[in-house]
Amino acid sequence: MPQLLVRCFSISLDGYGAGPDQSIDHPLGLKGETLHTWMFATRTFHTMVGKEGGATGTHEDFAARGFENIGAWILGRNMFGPVRGTWPDHLWKGWWGDTPPYHTPVFVLTNHARPPLEMKGGTTFHFVTEGIEAALAQAKEAAGPLDVRLGGGVSTIRQYLRAGLLDELHIAQSPVFLGAGENLFAGLDLPALGYDITDRVPTDATTHLTIKKQR
Amino acid sequence: MPQLLVRCFSISLDGYGAGPDQSIDHPLGLKGETLHTWMFATRTFHTMVGKEGGATGTHEDFAARGFENIGAWILGRNMFGPVRGTWPDHLWKGWWGDTPPYHTPVFVLTNHARPPLEMKGGTTFHFVTEGIEAALAQAKEAAGPLDVRLGGGVSTIRQYLRAGLLDELHIAQSPVFLGAGENLFAGLDLPALGYDITDRVPTDATTHLTIKKQR
Repeated sequence: MPQLLVRCFSISLDGYGAGPDQSIDHPLGLKGETLHTWMFATRTFHTMVGKEGGATGTHEDFAARGFENIGAWILGRNMFGPVRGTWPDHLWKGWWGDTPPYHTPVFVLTNHARPPLEMKGGTTFHFVTEGIEAALAQAKEAAGPLDVRLGGGVSTIRQYLRAGLLDELHIAQSPVFLGAGENLFAGLDLPALGYDITDRVPTDATTHLTIKKQR
Repeated sequence: MPQLLVRCFSISLDGYGAGPDQSIDHPLGLKGETLHTWMFATRTFHTMVGKEGGATGTHEDFAARGFENIGAWILGRNMFGPVRGTWPDHLWKGWWGDTPPYHTPVFVLTNHARPPLEMKGGTTFHFVTEGIEAALAQAKEAAGPLDVRLGGGVSTIRQYLRAGLLDELHIAQSPVFLGAGENLFAGLDLPALGYDITDRVPTDATTHLTIKKQR
């Protein structure tokens, strides 16, 4: 069965998945990039940003797995860009430039309709205004036999957790405090929602956690 | 300079320091004991509950350090017992029986006055109604050149963090979800309050974190 997966989603020790005050200069919020140190070093990330080299090993294994068997993505709107409210125009084309690293159809949750946007390298952004279940249905149809990756951000992941629609999450908890932002777990009763921690790989830079929905 | 220290305080991966619904049968709240698996195995804990044996090693080192150089304790009221509101009588004498493991003066924060209570083994409970700064002043005076240990619970630690009065915390973050309870970090801006993670020791059972106030 194709699954809905979160992969390589980094949070701080105090539970925040991004810093506060996201802007065009701070896509991850203030200090948000400190969560991702482990990822930035990997070969997979180097490839994503068009650089040579990058580390292999545990972090790379997790980073690479994040792109395996993925046939479609779902993103909350802030993962697509800093624009809030109605689209003033259609000039914003995502955080990643002409060739985004998705290389699949990407379903962006928004309250504001917009025509599909075809990018280089196989990524097409589709804007879904009918909510998380509609986005999942469209993504699963697009993915066919492959899995769907949910890119985030925190509030989108929380919505899918609350609805019990996420099958598995790989969360990297980094030993830093952000102090503010969006908290991934606060106020969510994960055991009651059926989620268990099934694997944990501590490293110096982060702790890789696998969380699965028990069915 | 004598310090105010938190030691061996266990939280869940979702940030809870105790489960919900504390009661006489569940001093740590529902499922709260799963946070403390690492501690229960130690020689120090065995000694606390009058048993022989117990493990040495990393967990024992942290557990033993929790009692080193401590001249007084501060406890939130729920760490003393399950009674809420006015004291119906003075029969409740703490969670630990006749010989509590503190062996020092212990200052219990409460809104309801009560005479001091002398126990076996050097522990005397003092009930402080004038707030956290008064409790700290009294504990420091009682401790003399030694440190003061703040036993918890979560809301008491958060009050001392917010006031910037805690010098150092040893937090053991265990890889379990509680799903509900009191969250230690949510809504506290620890970097703004001056707190940094200065050490991290991952183990299979828990991750030992040292958090210090920068001065």
